[in-house]
Amino acid sequence: MVNGLKSYGSTELLNELKGKNPFFICVIATTATAQIPNITGAGATPELMEYTPAGDVELIVRGELLCCDIPPQTIINGASAPTPAMITKAVLELTNIPYLIVNAGSKIKPDVPYLLVNDVAGGNIKTGKAVENPEKIFEDSKLIAKELSKTRDYLVIGESIPAGTTTALGVLTALGYDADFKVSGSTPENPHNLKKQTVLEGIANSKIAIGNVDPFKSVEAVGDPMIPSVAGLVIGSDIPVILAGGTQMAAVCSFIKAVEPDFDFSKICLGTTTFVASDESADLFNIVSQINDIAIHVIDPAFEKSGHVGLKNYLKGFVKEGVGAGGAMLTGLLLGYSIDEIREKIVEVCEK
Amino acid sequence: MVNGLKSYGSTELLNELKGKNPFFICVIATTATAQIPNITGAGATPELMEYTPAGDVELIVRGELLCCDIPPQTIINGASAPTPAMITKAVLELTNIPYLIVNAGSKIKPDVPYLLVNDVAGGNIKTGKAVENPEKIFEDSKLIAKELSKTRDYLVIGESIPAGTTTALGVLTALGYDADFKVSGSTPENPHNLKKQTVLEGIANSKIAIGNVDPFKSVEAVGDPMIPSVAGLVIGSDIPVILAGGTQMAAVCSFIKAVEPDFDFSKICLGTTTFVASDESADLFNIVSQINDIAIHVIDPAFEKSGHVGLKNYLKGFVKEGVGAGGAMLTGLLLGYSIDEIREKIVEVCEK
Repeated sequence: MVNGLKSYGSTELLNELKGKNPFFICVIATTATAQIPNITGAGATPELMEYTPAGDVELIVRGELLCCDIPPQTIINGASAPTPAMITKAVLELTNIPYLIVNAGSKIKPDVPYLLVNDVAGGNIKTGKAVENPEKIFEDSKLIAKELSKTRDYLVIGESIPAGTTTALGVLTALGYDADFKVSGSTPENPHNLKKQTVLEGIANSKIAIGNVDPFKSVEAVGDPMIPSVAGLVIGSDIPVILAGGTQMAAVCSFIKAVEPDFDFSKICLGTTTFVASDESADLFNIVSQINDIAIHVIDPAFEKSGHVGLKNYLKGFVKEGVGAGGAMLTGLLLGYSIDEIREKIVEVCEK
Repeated sequence: MVNGLKSYGSTELLNELKGKNPFFICVIATTATAQIPNITGAGATPELMEYTPAGDVELIVRGELLCCDIPPQTIINGASAPTPAMITKAVLELTNIPYLIVNAGSKIKPDVPYLLVNDVAGGNIKTGKAVENPEKIFEDSKLIAKELSKTRDYLVIGESIPAGTTTALGVLTALGYDADFKVSGSTPENPHNLKKQTVLEGIANSKIAIGNVDPFKSVEAVGDPMIPSVAGLVIGSDIPVILAGGTQMAAVCSFIKAVEPDFDFSKICLGTTTFVASDESADLFNIVSQINDIAIHVIDPAFEKSGHVGLKNYLKGFVKEGVGAGGAMLTGLLLGYSIDEIREKIVEVCEK
């Protein structure tokens, strides 16, 4: 049992990946769903939400913001917590893991080199018209994974997409899963009713049938561009994958199962934070158990041991996951770094 | 001495790379220079020239054209030769090497996933305003190489840019090299006077001083977006690089030397075709000798042994190099494939 890690389900894959060479991918996208007031906290102000994915990857790649002036963060009653991109950045710096950014459809283009998969941001799922041509996003992402999976032992895939738990709820609901009041959220007060109402409005407007819909149609109606992209990366990969995230990655798993019913879920696992796993306003474990036998590995960076006020706000639920933070920390552990080393590096990166 | 390979200069690096794991990168770009009548043969018609890079990489990635109907090819007096993309595609299929496309500024966007470095195509160098912000293209390409060079043992970098030998002449001339009547060309009749006149007009309009100009200014005035991108990939790489091409890659080397005078050229080499090396209308060896001690490895696929009419037209000078064809074949040899196996695969791919 590694300090900082708690595993649910099989640890076989994890043992196999210990000391092996990962490639980290962060998939970014936006949907206009994030503009619904109070639906997400993934940005300093409502206007800045759609800058969050671009800002996140600019911070990772360049260590500075170019698309806007105010860093991605969650602000509640004047207190703030830094974007989980800082966690991922810290792990990437600590471990020197190779990584690339995939743009699956972000309204704001980050000023970093990225793999372009789709240039069209998603719509507001309320309209029932969320994503144009998700099948193409899926197929092109498969092509990327085919190449990158030739180079390393496993992939670690994170995401940055504001209001992504709402679009995750959209796809999970459309595909027939019971995910109401179970998806995570980026603020302490998880606006479940607003999310549910948004999804149901979208499903009604799209006229898809709950539990009896083609997976691509479900994304087209009430999903986001990240879901088919990450699913394509997973299905296109010839090597194991750590899905770095919580309930949004559960939605990706539900989509994968619908696209490829015989998919072997033992070649993938979820790596997420304790902030998701212990979130009493969500139930990642229940959602995943409805899909398949998928191992979930939970990382606790013990931010209570740090003196950093912003990171300590993670303990209050300000931020729970994102930009692959949990899976990145898991990868750090797999490469032999201790959770204390990882936390200290995160603090160092946040203080810069 | 490997059959099909002739080496000029040190073979130390080549011996070191034998059996090692490469990553292939194809950098695409366009400039409006290609619209000057008769300057290039890299396309079926003058209107189709700027579709050539996009078409080339669509053929490699998808095996079919999506950006246009007519495949990239050189047509002279009714006879045609297929794009060298088919050579590269054949080697990538044969060897299963991982690869990615870098878009450094192509007017026509290929319908494949690519690493986006720059979205602005180059202008006609006649105007003296060829490339916007080459320093950014260079720096962003360095970031890509930093990541990709963590994954493999060496990089192989090719290019597709019509009229690229004219823009190569532009940069070589601006940087003070004697390259007149020495750059290669995509047709049997190399339009040297037209190339020289085009370059001199551009230099005059840009008001740069020949032999006394910042390398980025030289590209900005009379270069193309491919040159700073490939140079950035080389300088950003922590592993050896095979520059897959002829006189255009020589221009890249001249640019590298100007940007980084202490650059260690023993960590790179050129891999090109016998069609470039034996081109009596050009002098790759002389250009390179003016820059540094850089090994040149020449591959002869012996197309005279094939029954393919289009490939046999390579022997008549219809096409000489491009899309990394020479370096790709060299990589095939380094991985243990014979030149006969490589040629047979090329024929198979062309006949599809």
